[in-house]
Amino acid sequence: MIKEGETVHLTDNKISFFIKVKKGEQFGTHKGTINHDEILKRDYGDYIETHKGHKFQILKPTLYDIIMYGIKRRTQIIYPKDSAYITLKLGLTSGMKVLESGIGSAALTIVMANALYPKGKIYAYEKEEKHIETAKQNLEFAGFSEMVEIFHKDLSQVEEKDFDAAFIDVREPWHHIPKIKEVLKKGAPVGFLVPTVNQIIQLLEALKENNFIQIETLEILLRNYKSVPDRLRPEDRMVAHTGYLIFAKNG
Amino acid sequence: MIKEGETVHLTDNKISFFIKVKKGEQFGTHKGTINHDEILKRDYGDYIETHKGHKFQILKPTLYDIIMYGIKRRTQIIYPKDSAYITLKLGLTSGMKVLESGIGSAALTIVMANALYPKGKIYAYEKEEKHIETAKQNLEFAGFSEMVEIFHKDLSQVEEKDFDAAFIDVREPWHHIPKIKEVLKKGAPVGFLVPTVNQIIQLLEALKENNFIQIETLEILLRNYKSVPDRLRPEDRMVAHTGYLIFAKNG
Amino acid sequence: MIKEGETVHLTDNKISFFIKVKKGEQFGTHKGTINHDEILKRDYGDYIETHKGHKFQILKPTLYDIIMYGIKRRTQIIYPKDSAYITLKLGLTSGMKVLESGIGSAALTIVMANALYPKGKIYAYEKEEKHIETAKQNLEFAGFSEMVEIFHKDLSQVEEKDFDAAFIDVREPWHHIPKIKEVLKKGAPVGFLVPTVNQIIQLLEALKENNFIQIETLEILLRNYKSVPDRLRPEDRMVAHTGYLIFAKNG
Amino acid sequence: MIKEGETVHLTDNKISFFIKVKKGEQFGTHKGTINHDEILKRDYGDYIETHKGHKFQILKPTLYDIIMYGIKRRTQIIYPKDSAYITLKLGLTSGMKVLESGIGSAALTIVMANALYPKGKIYAYEKEEKHIETAKQNLEFAGFSEMVEIFHKDLSQVEEKDFDAAFIDVREPWHHIPKIKEVLKKGAPVGFLVPTVNQIIQLLEALKENNFIQIETLEILLRNYKSVPDRLRPEDRMVAHTGYLIFAKNG
Repeated sequence: MIKEGETVHLTDNKISFFIKVKKGEQFGTHKGTINHDEILKRDYGDYIETHKGHKFQILKPTLYDIIMYGIKRRTQIIYPKDSAYITLKLGLTSGMKVLESGIGSAALTIVMANALYPKGKIYAYEKEEKHIETAKQNLEFAGFSEMVEIFHKDLSQVEEKDFDAAFIDVREPWHHIPKIKEVLKKGAPVGFLVPTVNQIIQLLEALKENNFIQIETLEILLRNYKSVPDRLRPEDRMVAHTGYLIFAKNG
Repeated sequence: MIKEGETVHLTDNKISFFIKVKKGEQFGTHKGTINHDEILKRDYGDYIETHKGHKFQILKPTLYDIIMYGIKRRTQIIYPKDSAYITLKLGLTSGMKVLESGIGSAALTIVMANALYPKGKIYAYEKEEKHIETAKQNLEFAGFSEMVEIFHKDLSQVEEKDFDAAFIDVREPWHHIPKIKEVLKKGAPVGFLVPTVNQIIQLLEALKENNFIQIETLEILLRNYKSVPDRLRPEDRMVAHTGYLIFAKNG
Repeated sequence: MIKEGETVHLTDNKISFFIKVKKGEQFGTHKGTINHDEILKRDYGDYIETHKGHKFQILKPTLYDIIMYGIKRRTQIIYPKDSAYITLKLGLTSGMKVLESGIGSAALTIVMANALYPKGKIYAYEKEEKHIETAKQNLEFAGFSEMVEIFHKDLSQVEEKDFDAAFIDVREPWHHIPKIKEVLKKGAPVGFLVPTVNQIIQLLEALKENNFIQIETLEILLRNYKSVPDRLRPEDRMVAHTGYLIFAKNG
Repeated sequence: MIKEGETVHLTDNKISFFIKVKKGEQFGTHKGTINHDEILKRDYGDYIETHKGHKFQILKPTLYDIIMYGIKRRTQIIYPKDSAYITLKLGLTSGMKVLESGIGSAALTIVMANALYPKGKIYAYEKEEKHIETAKQNLEFAGFSEMVEIFHKDLSQVEEKDFDAAFIDVREPWHHIPKIKEVLKKGAPVGFLVPTVNQIIQLLEALKENNFIQIETLEILLRNYKSVPDRLRPEDRMVAHTGYLIFAKNG
């Protein structure tokens, strides 16, 4: 049975709500109202109806669910297929000091912070003030506020040094390669996400000019299947592009 | 400069060695011998030659490098494109109790342990004794031995309960679905890797019969590019298949 | 300049019309009316406005355009990425006698007939009467009526023999493998399209039981790019699945 | 039974031979000798052994087999997945006048000629003399010599006009866009193959400057499966890149 104080994930597979359950409270949606007391009578996987009869399934939220359905999106987020790979490819592990710019909605930041936990820190440089408040709320919601320090500054203004790893998601990363070289430890990895091939070209030139080594360019595609055992087949349509990933080491 | 006691990654992009550097020692390869003292005169990204003149680049090993080039492979490993996604999709985070079966060469186990660190534990059930020694050595090498308890038992013999998540990579996972349901917390996620579509079909049937929810089937493709800025293009060939991933929640 | 009697393709990249231009006539759309005389003052690539001011571009229709935008679709059609490959993989060339079942909207039939032209014939067996009229109109529109004979019969009722090639797009093709073996020339190729992996499995079993040789299973993916030279990148979404193609030879 | 005068395709799935069968003759391979008389005792799909005991299967050659296994390759050929789509996308049909440059080994030329047959002509401009002889032999072998006229000239030297379609596979196609515009009928389609994204960018700029319309950029991926009904899965590796295809119309 679900207990008071737990956060539950309500979903009809279109819209999602994350609710911290408290006796006597009500939760209002445009599909009708739900009494928290009704949630406390149920278990994960059960369905619950609003007073208007709209059905939601009660799920136990995972970190994945929080990133995909729980956080506020003010920007295009970096999706799990990419953020999971970035975090592993950069070799993020507890105790590391990581540079990120920009932070956007912090979807990647949460995944990276989870890998660093409980020690280490992400220094996130974000020049758009409007993103910072969202990022902070999302980090708070995911429980990783203390792992991240956000600077309302451009990547060119980074003052910290000796980073163990960096991830850069800015429009013109090639302008910042000397700066990244300067603040990254010798031998440490850096990753980039860019949406266009023109950006890859300019970035690769800058990385080579600055003697970065082990340069790799790749993209990750996720193909979903219709999980029907007697008519198993791929979904008709898929996401064909989020961004290209470029990785290198400070050689 | 590289310091005594650090582990360095030597690679010629075909073969890799991981060496803990110690003054006065020598390292022998079939390409010739390297004096550790010579490594201590260099920095990450520099090249070093064996006495036979074969060149290796000195890299700083990341967790990614350890998994891809450092661990012993006695089995087909689960590659980073998949292991990173599995770990995030299961929502692994510090403090969780995770079921894994089998452990194979522990390439996935290392990535999952990194997400759990420093609290939580992986209970790995492996029926092939020959894999257990390799898995232990690899976990030791990666620094995650204490996060994992390995049982020389079949998945059907699991005695622990209340798992927060599970990942199953066995030949006929469908036989074990009632057991998994029994030992997994209500609402908790489980993932599977199977190489053939026939296995997906049998697994989906078993998951549906046992009322698992939020069932998803997918595959992840990684496409590498030749990182040549003035002739940018995909690599001519790619890995087209490692395995299908199936995820569900205990509904 | 466009001449009287030519068929033009009007498109706003959402809706398309194919019009045989004739002096003095009018063409009515729900976006307004176009005078044929206005079309005759223009050239291919030019734009024309309806009396309501809606713009259409005037294109010269190719066989590709006819298949994609000109024919009536009563069924899911076989798309050019698949129909072009099928036609080449079956080695269709002038003079061949080809078996097809079912005909659907005849999108594949048109491509195959184009390869056979001017000699040879497609024998199309279609059990759904409602498709036959559409198929006939589409073949007429594309100019290939005389290359195709349509039978309102099931594949099991084929009476013709000595086919040089066959393409089968029916729900349960495995029931018809002995029949196909009987009517296909020794050594001749046959192709199949099925949407699900379950169908592939049953089909492969039947092909092996009946000693077909050179069996191949494949899928074709087409990925479109945004053709913007200074921001070149793949489209965000793509068609991820139309069907699996299976080819074999009558061994 | 195979008859005298027929051309058969002998293959061990690694090497292929195409032999016109004639009583009393012998065929020598480095795997041993085969008597034509032995072939005449067999049927398509049967196996035949050389005097050294090496087995070949006897297949009936299709146009596809001729392109893939029969023609001489002096250059990288355009593969069926691409050549089939190109031919349909350009709308090639009997009677058309088509421009091609360069011809390479004529693998695409054969597919295009098959669509034009029996009327129409391909004007192929090839500046490398060494390719021309191979191309001629391959066209002869495939039976399409009379559909193609080869000019030992650069694309810039084209003198013919009023082409119904064009396909351009040269290193720097952007230099030739005004020429192509000049010789292509108004509204007619043109296609290009380029291996790198840098080439796409330069080509798209030139097409836009010269007011080409309906510009599309795409790539075609073919994924093979292991055709084992009880262990169905994709092949482990696949061709990830042959070239990008760009299509436009002369607007």
